[in-house]
Amino acid sequence: MTTRNQTNYHSIRWTGTEIEIIDQTKLPEKELYIDLKTVDEVWDAISMLKVRGAPAIGIAGAYGFYLGIKDSPEMDYNSLYIHAENVASYLNSSRPTAVNLNWALQLLLSEMRNRSDMSTDELKKLILRKAIKIHNEDRDLCKAIGENGVSLVPGNARILTHCNTGGLATAAYGTAFSVILHSHFEKKVEMVWVDETRPLNQGSRLTAWELKKAGIPFTLNIDSAAASLMQNDKVDLIITGADRITLNGDAANKIGTYSLAVLAKAHNIPFYIAAPYSTIDLEMESGDEIVIEQRSPSEVTHFGNRQTAPDDIRVYNPAFDVTPHNLITAIITEKGVVRPNYRKNIPGLFR
Amino acid sequence: MTTRNQTNYHSIRWTGTEIEIIDQTKLPEKELYIDLKTVDEVWDAISMLKVRGAPAIGIAGAYGFYLGIKDSPEMDYNSLYIHAENVASYLNSSRPTAVNLNWALQLLLSEMRNRSDMSTDELKKLILRKAIKIHNEDRDLCKAIGENGVSLVPGNARILTHCNTGGLATAAYGTAFSVILHSHFEKKVEMVWVDETRPLNQGSRLTAWELKKAGIPFTLNIDSAAASLMQNDKVDLIITGADRITLNGDAANKIGTYSLAVLAKAHNIPFYIAAPYSTIDLEMESGDEIVIEQRSPSEVTHFGNRQTAPDDIRVYNPAFDVTPHNLITAIITEKGVVRPNYRKNIPGLFR
Repeated sequence: MTTRNQTNYHSIRWTGTEIEIIDQTKLPEKELYIDLKTVDEVWDAISMLKVRGAPAIGIAGAYGFYLGIKDSPEMDYNSLYIHAENVASYLNSSRPTAVNLNWALQLLLSEMRNRSDMSTDELKKLILRKAIKIHNEDRDLCKAIGENGVSLVPGNARILTHCNTGGLATAAYGTAFSVILHSHFEKKVEMVWVDETRPLNQGSRLTAWELKKAGIPFTLNIDSAAASLMQNDKVDLIITGADRITLNGDAANKIGTYSLAVLAKAHNIPFYIAAPYSTIDLEMESGDEIVIEQRSPSEVTHFGNRQTAPDDIRVYNPAFDVTPHNLITAIITEKGVVRPNYRKNIPGLFR
Repeated sequence: MTTRNQTNYHSIRWTGTEIEIIDQTKLPEKELYIDLKTVDEVWDAISMLKVRGAPAIGIAGAYGFYLGIKDSPEMDYNSLYIHAENVASYLNSSRPTAVNLNWALQLLLSEMRNRSDMSTDELKKLILRKAIKIHNEDRDLCKAIGENGVSLVPGNARILTHCNTGGLATAAYGTAFSVILHSHFEKKVEMVWVDETRPLNQGSRLTAWELKKAGIPFTLNIDSAAASLMQNDKVDLIITGADRITLNGDAANKIGTYSLAVLAKAHNIPFYIAAPYSTIDLEMESGDEIVIEQRSPSEVTHFGNRQTAPDDIRVYNPAFDVTPHNLITAIITEKGVVRPNYRKNIPGLFR
């Protein structure tokens, strides 16, 4: 069972010499922890989705960067830095679209820059400390998101959520999941409705597993049954994560999120987004600027090896959709809860 | 390719001596026709969902009833009638919740009643004629539904549909699918968006297959992406079937239908129901009276043999939801198109 300060599973743990991760490809059937001892093993784990979720990938990448330089024989600063650049470039190729991965690797490289005053041993120790810091900071911010969200959750809450936003995807606690978890600590959660989240079923495979581990009451439903739950007065609030939030409060998140937001409005149910403030893209005024990635048709036409649709057909398979700000009741970040008017209130978070 | 009066596949065909069906469990990978020569083979085919869809099951059951009595050695009316009752009872047990199956079997039994004037040979021929009549009437009514619906479809229509309502589920043409097909005959269809229709994927497995066979342009999407299509102005109308319509116009249909109706309203998109007038339940005033069947959790926790959720969890898996009449733009039947006020206009269909 979970307590206020830890959960009974972890996405990533630094053992002192290696990275221990839970193999997410084995969930929900098996809870299997594996050790990553080399940069190649980290590359494989990220590439094969054994570790997934933007923050968790960033953390794994940071430790992987350390593993990649710690045994390097280079004795001078310049050689080690060039080696480190190669390690970063290699690790980044394990999942080129993962923004947090590149962010963590660039951060560590920048820490090494202009540090020719340090010995290579000191530099390696510095990088490990910074990797641990990235890890700890993610845990802290996820905790803060959860604590900030609790006040929005009523007693005996029936909460609907979509996709996986839990401790598996982050250092711990998660984002939207952290709000649910911290509300559970306050004994406020009567039921969590879990959208299975097609096409990759992160809800049924991962969120359901995390809720079960945490001892939080939950029920799984297909995505299109969410409306039926709302119609039958079984949902008090909806909360999801976000991949990107623009300055006006529009939020891009897993496909299906916009659908929930429209349904929430139609049923007078509050709809919340929970995400780190780093999700807010200060370069974008509105969701209209967000380009929607289309993913492989095979995610929809096949399930594992099983064919579920005719051959050679067109598939509309966007990775995410954009929920306009006017459907979002509040945005929960580690720096506080933002309410409309978002265009006015979001910049306040950065002060 | 399809023409105005036939499609290039059929759910059921009477060969003169046996029933030929398309084995729907092999779709979409294989188009396999099998012959049913005995009542036992019909029982198996219905039970194993080789033939599915309420009207198609009724038609298969009617021919199966004939197969069950045609070689019976009974020479007198009473013995043949008792035998026929046993056949009907046996066939009905192949899928006890299929209303059309029991309806067809009871209709044929009632045709035999008080016909002791006929020889057993004459009676058997009468039953075959009546089975063929059930088959033909379903084809005719599906055609009429399609023809009646065409006027509601604009040119270059982008139509979204849910579940399977096609020729596979009926004698031919289908219900909502018949409207799409007949609109295609009039060259009015630019695109059909096909909801995959979780949890059993009738959309991706069957509707996509039928659209491909008919040469109608279509694109498959996960159910929760329907909202994204509407948000991006890619849907001109939505049309689905119905399992049951109450006197006030409320319609029960496959889970996910209500969700589409709410989304349609929010995006100012017309939402149509197409169904035979026999779907209208004159005993029920409103959808509040409809009891929602909950189906097996395994439909959601497993995909084939593959586990997609943790063991021993709660699942909300209703077979259908109820769309309130105020979200339905019109109801298309073989007797004509009904518009609100439904409570006033539905009884007019029965005059």
